[in-house]
Amino acid sequence: MINKKDIQNQIIQAVEIVRRENPIVGSITNTVTINFVANAQLAVGGSAAMVYLPDEGEFLAKASEATYINFGTFIPLYEQTLPRVSKALHEARKPWVLDPVAVGIGSLRTQLLLELKKYKPTVIRGNASEILALAGLWELEGGTALSTVRGVDSTDSVTSAKNAAVALAKCTGGAVAVSGKTDLITDGSVIAFSHGGSHFMGKITGAGCSLGGVVAVYATAASPFIAALTASAVYNLAGTRAEKKVDGPGSFQIQFLDELYKANAGDIANNPFEIEEV
Amino acid sequence: MINKKDIQNQIIQAVEIVRRENPIVGSITNTVTINFVANAQLAVGGSAAMVYLPDEGEFLAKASEATYINFGTFIPLYEQTLPRVSKALHEARKPWVLDPVAVGIGSLRTQLLLELKKYKPTVIRGNASEILALAGLWELEGGTALSTVRGVDSTDSVTSAKNAAVALAKCTGGAVAVSGKTDLITDGSVIAFSHGGSHFMGKITGAGCSLGGVVAVYATAASPFIAALTASAVYNLAGTRAEKKVDGPGSFQIQFLDELYKANAGDIANNPFEIEEV
Amino acid sequence: MINKKDIQNQIIQAVEIVRRENPIVGSITNTVTINFVANAQLAVGGSAAMVYLPDEGEFLAKASEATYINFGTFIPLYEQTLPRVSKALHEARKPWVLDPVAVGIGSLRTQLLLELKKYKPTVIRGNASEILALAGLWELEGGTALSTVRGVDSTDSVTSAKNAAVALAKCTGGAVAVSGKTDLITDGSVIAFSHGGSHFMGKITGAGCSLGGVVAVYATAASPFIAALTASAVYNLAGTRAEKKVDGPGSFQIQFLDELYKANAGDIANNPFEIEEV
Repeated sequence: MINKKDIQNQIIQAVEIVRRENPIVGSITNTVTINFVANAQLAVGGSAAMVYLPDEGEFLAKASEATYINFGTFIPLYEQTLPRVSKALHEARKPWVLDPVAVGIGSLRTQLLLELKKYKPTVIRGNASEILALAGLWELEGGTALSTVRGVDSTDSVTSAKNAAVALAKCTGGAVAVSGKTDLITDGSVIAFSHGGSHFMGKITGAGCSLGGVVAVYATAASPFIAALTASAVYNLAGTRAEKKVDGPGSFQIQFLDELYKANAGDIANNPFEIEEV
Repeated sequence: MINKKDIQNQIIQAVEIVRRENPIVGSITNTVTINFVANAQLAVGGSAAMVYLPDEGEFLAKASEATYINFGTFIPLYEQTLPRVSKALHEARKPWVLDPVAVGIGSLRTQLLLELKKYKPTVIRGNASEILALAGLWELEGGTALSTVRGVDSTDSVTSAKNAAVALAKCTGGAVAVSGKTDLITDGSVIAFSHGGSHFMGKITGAGCSLGGVVAVYATAASPFIAALTASAVYNLAGTRAEKKVDGPGSFQIQFLDELYKANAGDIANNPFEIEEV
Repeated sequence: MINKKDIQNQIIQAVEIVRRENPIVGSITNTVTINFVANAQLAVGGSAAMVYLPDEGEFLAKASEATYINFGTFIPLYEQTLPRVSKALHEARKPWVLDPVAVGIGSLRTQLLLELKKYKPTVIRGNASEILALAGLWELEGGTALSTVRGVDSTDSVTSAKNAAVALAKCTGGAVAVSGKTDLITDGSVIAFSHGGSHFMGKITGAGCSLGGVVAVYATAASPFIAALTASAVYNLAGTRAEKKVDGPGSFQIQFLDELYKANAGDIANNPFEIEEV
């Protein structure tokens, strides 16, 4: 039986371990939001390091306690870097988060997303369209053809990606987080729905990417499912709080980082969520 | 006869269509200000997507309603990406904005600026030095030798670039926007001068780049001339408003994004400008 | 005899020259903090230009009055760009700042840090772990093996890097700045300790990189030692002031840029520091 109180205790533990240990988390991520990803990781208590080169990624895969791999702003170098780093992570049994940004755009992106399936990302985070398309690409139940992806923004609802998310989690043995108005997090047997956030999160760039980066931070201190749920909870909490204090997206981004930093473990665990069995 | 009221109505229409339709705008742009470009595009109502790879750029050229190409922080990959994407845009008759940052620095930048002439950018946006140098490079009337460009900042006045701007607009059949204390926008037959802004816009990086990105957003919903004028107007309005609320460039950047987001169509159309025939 | 009052007068002069002359400073720097570097350089009065290509870097080496080279987020292109630009700077006797971020990670980074030794960076800026590791790599007194570097953050105290910093300064004939709770700046014969700053500087990304970029700005108007001390002083002053006005790292970053912009020359010169002979 899943127990909400147990989950909350694990969230508290994840938050407190990260704040105490300041874990190093490596990232390979896009140039649009790389600064925001790093600042969000620092705000929740992590230490951020970003690289592009294959051997540097392999070094970080070992030196870091978790790694974040984001498919935005692809460069040719990724053909070498991403498989080598994913392989190193998989072999070292280090947690890593895959953010399949803009899956369906471009041949190299598609090829590498196919190739990375075998390295079993610990957590997959994306919006509903990306989760549906990735499940489709990996030929899993609930997936769709790639054609529905519209740039980097979602055109599908979170609940429409439920089956795809469960199938992806079962495939990797890890967790999947679908971001949207209500976030869906699953490990393939339990599904959590996390509430909160702000309409401003769609009016700034990087809310999703930085959430992926923060999932990686918590993956150093918790199971994939708890890491994804903790990150979603602190994002929803900080988003709700930040929105009350601002009237535009510029101020929201700043206030949001402040609220990530200030959120305490108990409040994060108490951010509204419900759970159900698959 | 040009009619100021007609222009204002077209500005209102452009602002409202963008807010309602949330058009996707692709960008290939420099790493310095890429985040600010995306956030500015989102603040005015667009949806932003950034890429570097040739086939991804071609995909976005078709999937987006307009594209922004900025020549900052060149990488070797651009030798393939920029001609292929510009060609795709030209053939699909999609609007695109060229921002010839630092024209005159480096051989690849120069070669590609020459090559892109035939794909007729819908809008060219730059500071006076860049517009003068680009007109010179393209061997148009009013242009100058490249030697006057000083890094990325302008050393020439906007009015000194008037003939070059008109010549560039006539060459492309689109519009040209020259950014400065007063902005000059022309389609080759009409010239508009847009007033406002803030001295802080020269104290932050990305005021010019993000203006180019926002021109592309409005180019999804208006003629090249109206798109460039609308973007200049909302920038001048937001700059004026933001400056009154802050006392430093950090706060200015944040407040400026907030004001971009909050500006309504009527106020943007009423931001001071005058028009003259060429 | 070193005289504190003389040093303060030179700091005042450096700050005022930069504000008056708006010197162009080129940078080759990482994608994580490139925006923050540029905004910090603008806030203190410089003009920023960033490039990646070898010939563009050589152009900027000549066109700029100083250059900042940061070893973060390495790309293969740097194998050509960094030696060519460093050589051009050395031959033109232009001041340049080396920021050996993450020294010890990756083979290319290590190879290039070895190669750049002969081009004698005017100022080397890093945290204690980086300064220790660079001195070790260059086989200087006080250096350590590379193995102590932990990602991009320091695990060593500033005072533990004192001998390494002095040895590096003697090797280059320039200055070295070690960033930490108290900053240590030396030209090999004098050591200054600069106080202030904020705990939030470790909670945002780019405090160190942007300090390096600002050292380069002051290096256009002062000796290497005074440039490094002036930059450290304005950073410590702005950090102290910003911390009093904010309660989170997002707001800190913004307020910090405002305080960099507002700090006057006298206050920067009076920011607490002491000096000792080596």
